[in-house]
Amino acid sequence: MQLSEKEILEKLKTGEIRLFEIEKYTNTANEATDIRRKYIENETKVQLPHIASYSIDMTDTAAKNIENQIGTIQIPVGVVGPIEINMDNETFKTYVPMATTEGALLASVNRGCSTIRKSGGCNVSILANQMTRAPVIKTKSTRDANQLKQWIKNNFDEIKKVAQSTTSHGKLLKIDPIAIVGRYVYPRFVFDSGDSMGMNMVTIATEEALKLIEKENDIDVIALSGNFCVDKKPSAINMIEGRGKSVVAEVIVPKEVVEKTLKTTTQEIVEVNYSKNLLGSAISGSFGYNAHFANMVAALFLATGQDPAHVVEASLGITTAENENGDLYFSVTLPDLPVATVGGGTRLETATESLNLIDAKGSGKVNKFASIVAGIVLAGELSLAGALAAGHLASAHKKLGR
Amino acid sequence: MQLSEKEILEKLKTGEIRLFEIEKYTNTANEATDIRRKYIENETKVQLPHIASYSIDMTDTAAKNIENQIGTIQIPVGVVGPIEINMDNETFKTYVPMATTEGALLASVNRGCSTIRKSGGCNVSILANQMTRAPVIKTKSTRDANQLKQWIKNNFDEIKKVAQSTTSHGKLLKIDPIAIVGRYVYPRFVFDSGDSMGMNMVTIATEEALKLIEKENDIDVIALSGNFCVDKKPSAINMIEGRGKSVVAEVIVPKEVVEKTLKTTTQEIVEVNYSKNLLGSAISGSFGYNAHFANMVAALFLATGQDPAHVVEASLGITTAENENGDLYFSVTLPDLPVATVGGGTRLETATESLNLIDAKGSGKVNKFASIVAGIVLAGELSLAGALAAGHLASAHKKLGR
Amino acid sequence: MQLSEKEILEKLKTGEIRLFEIEKYTNTANEATDIRRKYIENETKVQLPHIASYSIDMTDTAAKNIENQIGTIQIPVGVVGPIEINMDNETFKTYVPMATTEGALLASVNRGCSTIRKSGGCNVSILANQMTRAPVIKTKSTRDANQLKQWIKNNFDEIKKVAQSTTSHGKLLKIDPIAIVGRYVYPRFVFDSGDSMGMNMVTIATEEALKLIEKENDIDVIALSGNFCVDKKPSAINMIEGRGKSVVAEVIVPKEVVEKTLKTTTQEIVEVNYSKNLLGSAISGSFGYNAHFANMVAALFLATGQDPAHVVEASLGITTAENENGDLYFSVTLPDLPVATVGGGTRLETATESLNLIDAKGSGKVNKFASIVAGIVLAGELSLAGALAAGHLASAHKKLGR
Amino acid sequence: MQLSEKEILEKLKTGEIRLFEIEKYTNTANEATDIRRKYIENETKVQLPHIASYSIDMTDTAAKNIENQIGTIQIPVGVVGPIEINMDNETFKTYVPMATTEGALLASVNRGCSTIRKSGGCNVSILANQMTRAPVIKTKSTRDANQLKQWIKNNFDEIKKVAQSTTSHGKLLKIDPIAIVGRYVYPRFVFDSGDSMGMNMVTIATEEALKLIEKENDIDVIALSGNFCVDKKPSAINMIEGRGKSVVAEVIVPKEVVEKTLKTTTQEIVEVNYSKNLLGSAISGSFGYNAHFANMVAALFLATGQDPAHVVEASLGITTAENENGDLYFSVTLPDLPVATVGGGTRLETATESLNLIDAKGSGKVNKFASIVAGIVLAGELSLAGALAAGHLASAHKKLGR
Repeated sequence: MQLSEKEILEKLKTGEIRLFEIEKYTNTANEATDIRRKYIENETKVQLPHIASYSIDMTDTAAKNIENQIGTIQIPVGVVGPIEINMDNETFKTYVPMATTEGALLASVNRGCSTIRKSGGCNVSILANQMTRAPVIKTKSTRDANQLKQWIKNNFDEIKKVAQSTTSHGKLLKIDPIAIVGRYVYPRFVFDSGDSMGMNMVTIATEEALKLIEKENDIDVIALSGNFCVDKKPSAINMIEGRGKSVVAEVIVPKEVVEKTLKTTTQEIVEVNYSKNLLGSAISGSFGYNAHFANMVAALFLATGQDPAHVVEASLGITTAENENGDLYFSVTLPDLPVATVGGGTRLETATESLNLIDAKGSGKVNKFASIVAGIVLAGELSLAGALAAGHLASAHKKLGR
Repeated sequence: MQLSEKEILEKLKTGEIRLFEIEKYTNTANEATDIRRKYIENETKVQLPHIASYSIDMTDTAAKNIENQIGTIQIPVGVVGPIEINMDNETFKTYVPMATTEGALLASVNRGCSTIRKSGGCNVSILANQMTRAPVIKTKSTRDANQLKQWIKNNFDEIKKVAQSTTSHGKLLKIDPIAIVGRYVYPRFVFDSGDSMGMNMVTIATEEALKLIEKENDIDVIALSGNFCVDKKPSAINMIEGRGKSVVAEVIVPKEVVEKTLKTTTQEIVEVNYSKNLLGSAISGSFGYNAHFANMVAALFLATGQDPAHVVEASLGITTAENENGDLYFSVTLPDLPVATVGGGTRLETATESLNLIDAKGSGKVNKFASIVAGIVLAGELSLAGALAAGHLASAHKKLGR
Repeated sequence: MQLSEKEILEKLKTGEIRLFEIEKYTNTANEATDIRRKYIENETKVQLPHIASYSIDMTDTAAKNIENQIGTIQIPVGVVGPIEINMDNETFKTYVPMATTEGALLASVNRGCSTIRKSGGCNVSILANQMTRAPVIKTKSTRDANQLKQWIKNNFDEIKKVAQSTTSHGKLLKIDPIAIVGRYVYPRFVFDSGDSMGMNMVTIATEEALKLIEKENDIDVIALSGNFCVDKKPSAINMIEGRGKSVVAEVIVPKEVVEKTLKTTTQEIVEVNYSKNLLGSAISGSFGYNAHFANMVAALFLATGQDPAHVVEASLGITTAENENGDLYFSVTLPDLPVATVGGGTRLETATESLNLIDAKGSGKVNKFASIVAGIVLAGELSLAGALAAGHLASAHKKLGR
Repeated sequence: MQLSEKEILEKLKTGEIRLFEIEKYTNTANEATDIRRKYIENETKVQLPHIASYSIDMTDTAAKNIENQIGTIQIPVGVVGPIEINMDNETFKTYVPMATTEGALLASVNRGCSTIRKSGGCNVSILANQMTRAPVIKTKSTRDANQLKQWIKNNFDEIKKVAQSTTSHGKLLKIDPIAIVGRYVYPRFVFDSGDSMGMNMVTIATEEALKLIEKENDIDVIALSGNFCVDKKPSAINMIEGRGKSVVAEVIVPKEVVEKTLKTTTQEIVEVNYSKNLLGSAISGSFGYNAHFANMVAALFLATGQDPAHVVEASLGITTAENENGDLYFSVTLPDLPVATVGGGTRLETATESLNLIDAKGSGKVNKFASIVAGIVLAGELSLAGALAAGHLASAHKKLGR
């Protein structure tokens, strides 16, 4: 049933229509969005002209990405690069879009990209692709818990068949580890999720698998996620086992490039990495043995429609710096990078444009995309390590950040 | 010197002008942004019409928030609420904007807000406001390291004076703890940063303090940040000591509301929280004893111009659920929430509108803003705990998330 | 060549004989021990009559357990129990020896044993038996690192054959996980070590396996242990994956027994466990979600000749307490318990007597022994949780501990 | 009332006398010990002649250190050294007793001591002496929790007075941090405990302080220990804040000594430490960035009557290795070393002899003792790092350990 804007606004006021129901009474999601925003403007006496200035089509977002839309947030986006990357089978250079409001970040990453180019590019290896979901199941006793664990191990093939029946591209790789605490059991379902980030897929597949497990065992599924996954929380298990894409990027920066481009020395960078990223993180009880992975990841995630809550996981990881006969061996290890080139926020217009810009949109592109993320993280770590070594951090912030 | 778009594009092509120098040759930052985007479109053969469709003024962003701009990313924003919050001196209800592409998130938070309203609102306490910076300093021996530690303790008043000379609103609260590893020293400077998030402020103030410390001691400052801060990495120290705002939100949900609104029971929610958020996180080596703090924080941070890389820290924290004579006591503790209502990304037009929407823009508003974040996190945790208890997670995702 | 005591003492004085060489010049290890002690007494002017009062034969210890012997340390040992344990195939009651100098510990554990007996005994499940060793291997690049990882996976059967050629009873279960940091590789070799604790066995077997891996790959083995094992250091990986024996013990204490024997209520114990062992440990960044596993383990390890440095690992673990219709469900999960009933210190006379006392000496007994450890840990946790609940801790310490 | 051995054994059999009551019916604790052992021998049909062969006086142990005694355990003890230590005000060399059953340990430490002597001794700094106890207190709401925190801060002087009234030598240094989770409060009481380890002292003093806090605030003390202490569990907070004695030991080993005594090179040791103790521990989610602190600490603790359950805490810490113009800078940082030279197990005869041997018995000696522990840990780390570098570990174990 279509209603006019005026009618809808009146019925919202009286409560006859609820805020999330507007889409039922309009032709398009965009209309609904604008009416809702006007209602909120009226209620709060706050004007929202920029939130109103969106160009994207709200139809899909209303169906898949958000409820109660009122418009869009605009985040500035710039480019860095080109970053030069050597993958196992492919070498490429590309400009990379990053969206941020942190002054000096792109300038710094840009310097890292330049350093990497002068060093012949960086190498990136994709170590693993594993999206996980781990329910928590209650049994009657620890003996039952142990029997359930054995049952799951013994019936892996059947569980796999059932789980994979819900998805066209996800593969159940293993159910491991299976933790037991008292009489609770936490089986960690590990899937290859292809080009999608995979959380929804593994949730649905795990749910289906649980139906089989429940049918054959006398158990009580407490929750589909038992926090042994671990989604969007920092955890040792994800650092150890990996989650999402596990990626390493490395570069050997020749001595002269360290000195000329980074204005410091190999030994100074090695010492910064050792005393800050290793010893400093150790004494802090930290899982982030790096300088600022999160900055680069967040800016790339925003530009390309990844889930910004996953920045939490991407901040796990280790930066290494080694003196290789005077040259600088430098690497970043990201064990837990949940990314996608299809689905989720990647469908949005600006995200699509960003992914197209780096030729990483759609099927078959996720490894390339993960490589670019790792390469840009490498560039950002390298540049900041150099800047810290040279004592330039605060002055750079003074000039650019205030 | 002004040049035409055509001239600039040609000189970019030849390398006479570099990508980050365009602003020097145009009248406005917006012009420079558009020329840069066109250059990138030409180079990559990718059209970026939506990234081009921005309404915000690029002048300030070019000066303070980003380099190499080519436009903006649009992220859908919706509203939830009203959330009802009782602070120490103030009680209020407000709609809250959240920007996300994760379907079902706002619907879920909305249900949490509704539950909280039916319970008479939630209580929020601000426990602390502490922005930190911890350099790493090398000394000649562990004895020198210990002497430096004592010198810093003994000269706190003077160090404080020097540090505060660089800032109008920051206060140096303490330098504590001061960690020593071998002969390296990591003094943690802890500031009250007022309404700003404070990272730039504390960096500059700490740098000034270091000049004094360096003058009076025979030391070698390796880096302004020694990762004992800990900025944008998950760490035990921030959970233990707090960083940014430390906030707790709590609500007592009457038995009937649990049953009617959340469609489950107090005891079931208590068990979900116990087996998932506590036991499940413990066995994972996690610092996030919660279900999904990061989701709510990320959506609020995007809407209001906070730093999305800080979502990492906000994911630290604990959810508690207790049976209080049949009613549900439910709380979220966020020890490490770096937020601002002035400076950084909050200046951007859409962020300003979002902050105005919740009456939390500008000086004197940061505690209110932190309270809203905590309240919304509480709503999201409560709703998901309820949904998990009721076994609804996967079906909700099936319907809304795909 | 035999020399007299006087001659040896003179030659020690002049440096002609070194302290560790005395055994070469005496008939028995006991003689050498006594001469060495006399030399030390002379040098330090300190008399050591009690260290001299040993009854054990020093021959084997000199060959296998220690160098530079001067006598023995005496640690008081008492008994608790009987503890009543239900294993999968066996139910038994036994007195248990514990060696300690912490007053009140045995009294407290004894009360726990009594509570368990009144509850029909405790159930113990052995979840796994996994002794591990993880070398660190350097490769030329992250690509080589990844190839090494794949090579190890693809050649598991051959590696297993080689590794097992060094041992009659050890079985290589898996090499997993294989971590990569930059260009370093950390393959975790996981063995079933039977009744021995297994560290020496897995070290030798892993060394042999490395010879094969080194022969077939262009790599550099940096160290036989790369700290991914993790031996004698607290670590998340051991909590997650398990090491040594992984064991759970549980008991359901009837409401009346809680009240009469523990002098408190089920709900009070549940709350102590929740607020102390779960929330308190979470906010501390702790891996020990328990009250005092280490106390019971240390006292049992000393009595039975286990390695006291392994108490570090045994302190990892989780205590759970749940209200089961008014009765108390109580459990302890010990994922990382390295124990043996053959080899190492178990050969010593007093250790042998202790193991005989509990009928757990020699082959085929290690699961029984691990069960007893878990049962006693359960008793100690239960008793302390009860005592804390009842507010009795400090007064008990006042009376017994000072 | 005195009874004969025969009478007591009969009454034990019938249950008229309980096992822990024997001391009431004998003249001496030694008689009671022997009767109890005979009863256990009869019950279990296991002879315990070596456990019976003790020389120590059981009277004090029965009163203060253990219940239900049946004899003693004998642990072999040897000597290493001399270790050469430079403290702030004192330089000394001493042989050091270590009790262990791990073959090759003393030989290895001995080599480390020799390396240190050839390097002019090691420097040790005592950074702090802090014994802690942190109760868990429940309040009605998070607001009340915050008010309690403020009240404790504002009334520190009075709390200190009350706490210190229970002890002649303990000093309350601070109550910090005070953590809040939901409505639970965890104030960490930090004491200087002098020469005693201090756990009993701080427990009693904290209990007294709680009486005052309870009187003046509407609160509910759930437990005297809320696991924020953290006693005998591995924790980040103890690594960050320190507990017991916080100690660093360091040595600069000249290039020639590295090569001649350790049979390797500075650079190789630096690489072992970097790839194993730092990177390997990082990827394991470990708090022990060292090779085997626990081995040395355990052997020293057994020899000198320290609490072996405290080895858990002592395993926390970091080893550093740096190339200093070709020489090797090597250090160990032990933030959490709970030790004593009075009280507890140090009173026992063999422990007293061991402490006398190193001139570290009684008042005023605890810093010297902590220095010796740190020096021996340094020696053990140095020797193992060298051995690993040289690839000697497994062969050493083959020869000595089997």
